[in-house]
Amino acid sequence: MDGVATARSPALIALDWGTSSLRAYLLGPDGAVLDSRSAPQGIMQVPGGDFAAVFEAVTGEWRHRWPELKSIAAGMIGSAQGWVEAPYLPCPAGPEELAGGLVPVPGGALLVVPGVAQYGEAPNVMRGEETQIAGALALNPALREGSLLVMPGTHSKWVSIEQGRIARFDTYMTGELFAVLRGHSILGRFARDVPKAAEDAAADAAFLRGVQAVREGGQVAPLLFSARALVLTGGLRPELSLDYLSGLLIGEELLCGLRGRREGVVLIGDPALCRRYREALALLGVSEVREIENAATAGLWRIAIQAGLAAGISEETV
Amino acid sequence: MDGVATARSPALIALDWGTSSLRAYLLGPDGAVLDSRSAPQGIMQVPGGDFAAVFEAVTGEWRHRWPELKSIAAGMIGSAQGWVEAPYLPCPAGPEELAGGLVPVPGGALLVVPGVAQYGEAPNVMRGEETQIAGALALNPALREGSLLVMPGTHSKWVSIEQGRIARFDTYMTGELFAVLRGHSILGRFARDVPKAAEDAAADAAFLRGVQAVREGGQVAPLLFSARALVLTGGLRPELSLDYLSGLLIGEELLCGLRGRREGVVLIGDPALCRRYREALALLGVSEVREIENAATAGLWRIAIQAGLAAGISEETV
Repeated sequence: MDGVATARSPALIALDWGTSSLRAYLLGPDGAVLDSRSAPQGIMQVPGGDFAAVFEAVTGEWRHRWPELKSIAAGMIGSAQGWVEAPYLPCPAGPEELAGGLVPVPGGALLVVPGVAQYGEAPNVMRGEETQIAGALALNPALREGSLLVMPGTHSKWVSIEQGRIARFDTYMTGELFAVLRGHSILGRFARDVPKAAEDAAADAAFLRGVQAVREGGQVAPLLFSARALVLTGGLRPELSLDYLSGLLIGEELLCGLRGRREGVVLIGDPALCRRYREALALLGVSEVREIENAATAGLWRIAIQAGLAAGISEETV
Repeated sequence: MDGVATARSPALIALDWGTSSLRAYLLGPDGAVLDSRSAPQGIMQVPGGDFAAVFEAVTGEWRHRWPELKSIAAGMIGSAQGWVEAPYLPCPAGPEELAGGLVPVPGGALLVVPGVAQYGEAPNVMRGEETQIAGALALNPALREGSLLVMPGTHSKWVSIEQGRIARFDTYMTGELFAVLRGHSILGRFARDVPKAAEDAAADAAFLRGVQAVREGGQVAPLLFSARALVLTGGLRPELSLDYLSGLLIGEELLCGLRGRREGVVLIGDPALCRRYREALALLGVSEVREIENAATAGLWRIAIQAGLAAGISEETV
C-alpha cells in the first residue's frame, strides 16, 4: 500500500458492467474520475463467458501499475448470467446493506454489488440501479429523508426513498416496449420506410401530443394503434409516428407513477431521455424536477467507502 | 349462365385474403360452403406482388369450371400493399355501404371490399373485420339494433353497432403486443429457455392470475415486469410466465374496453382465443357472452348478395 493518498493517486477501480456494455473508472481519493475505459462486452457479449479475460483486458493496465487497488462492480455482472451471482437483498436496503452484501468473483479480483428485490404482493427486482441510488443519495443528502426517484430507461424504476434507503419501487418496461414496438411491430413500419429524421421541433411536438393523448384518455391501451391510424387518416406525418408513440408510452408511465401527485421528482438517467421526461412532467403539472448525473460512479464510490475498499481512505475521512 | 341454381350449384367465390394467409370458399346458393382452399400467400408473401397468379392458382379450377361465378374478397388485399386499394369508408358503415364501395382489381376478375375508418379525435381503421361484422349481423339480426362486438386478435377490435352499422370502434394491439414481447423482450426469455408446455389447468390459472392482477391494480404498465419479477422471486414457474403475461394484456384490454359495463358482449374470432376472453370476462363479472363463428364467409356472402353478385340469386330471394 502506498499509505498516504495524494491528489493524483488512484484509490479504487469501479465498474458499471451491464447487459450490453462495460464502463470502468479509475477513481481518485475524493471519488473523482481520473481515467476511464469502456468496452462493448456487456455480459451478453462475453465470448465463452470468460469474464476474467474481459476484466483483465479493460482494467489490467491499472491493476498491474497499482496492485494495491481494489475493484468493485455493479450491474448485471452480478446476475445469474454474470460472473458471480450476488443474491438480491430485500427492501429496505441502502449503502450499508449493499456494502455488507458484496460478493467476490472466483479468485477474488472483483467484488460485486448485490441487486435489490421487493417481495410480497408486488414483487420486483433491480440490479445496477441500487448503486446509482446510493450515488444519488451521496450527492444529494437531502433526498435521504424522503423522495421519489425516477430512473428512465429500458426498465424504468420509480423508487421511494425513506430514511436513506430504498423503501419500495416499481418497474415500467417503457424503454423495452418502445424498442420492440419500433423494431418488430407494425407501429415501426412507417419509420422504417421513412427513415429521414424529422426536425427537432416537430418531433418534440409529436412527443407531447402523445403525452397529452394519454393524459386525456387516461389509458394507453386503446391509443397505441393510433400511432398508425393517425398516419393512415392523414393526421400525423409518418416520420413523426415514433415520437408520438414515445409520448404515449412515457405519458402512460408518468400517469401511473405519479398517481395524481405533483410533488417534485428526481430524474436519474441518460440526459436526452431525461429531457423528454422533464417536458412530459411539465405538461402533467410537475415542474419541480431535478436531474442527477454520474450517479453510478458516485454509488460505487460510496459503497466501496462503506466497505473499506478505497485505498488509504476510511469512511470517517469522507 | 346456368340460369337456375340447384342445391349443388355454386353461386359465389369468396376470399378472405389477409396479411399472412389466403382462404378461398366456393359458396352455394344458400351461402353454405361447398368447397374451400387455403394457401400461405398472404399479401406479404406474394412473390413479386403477382396477386393474379396466386388468385389463379387457388381459384382457377373453380372459375374455369363455372365461368359465370363472380369473385369477392375482403382483408388486406384491399390495402395500399394489396392488389388494389379499396379506400376506407367512413363510419357509420354497414353492408349497404360496403357493397357500394367494392373496388375491382385490374382486369376485373375480383371485387374487393373496402375497409372502414373512423376520423376525428379518435382515428381508427379496420380492414377485414367490417366483413366479419356484416356476417355476424346477418347471422344474428337481433344484434343490429345495438350491441358490442369484441373481435380478439392481433389487433382486437371493439365495435359498437347501431342501426345495423358500425357506429364507432376501438383497436387494442393485444395480440401483437403479446407476440413482440414473447419473441423479442426479456419477458419471453423464460419461455424460450423452458419451452416445455405447462399443463392446461396450471396455464389457465396463471392466465386468470394475470387478469386478476390488472383488475386489482387497475393498470397494466407497472405490472408488465412482474411477469419476470414473479419468476425471479419464486412466485411463478417460468413456463407459466407467458400465460400470466397473456392474462395481464387481455385483462387490460377488457378493463379498458368494458369501462365498467357488465352487459353482454359478442365474441368473434379464433375459438381458443375466444375461450380465454370468455374466462377473463367471467372473472370481470360479464357472464353473458355469445360467440359467432364463420362470420367472414357469412359477411362476404351478405355483401355479395347486396351487390347482386351471387349467381342466380337476388337480394329479395334471401
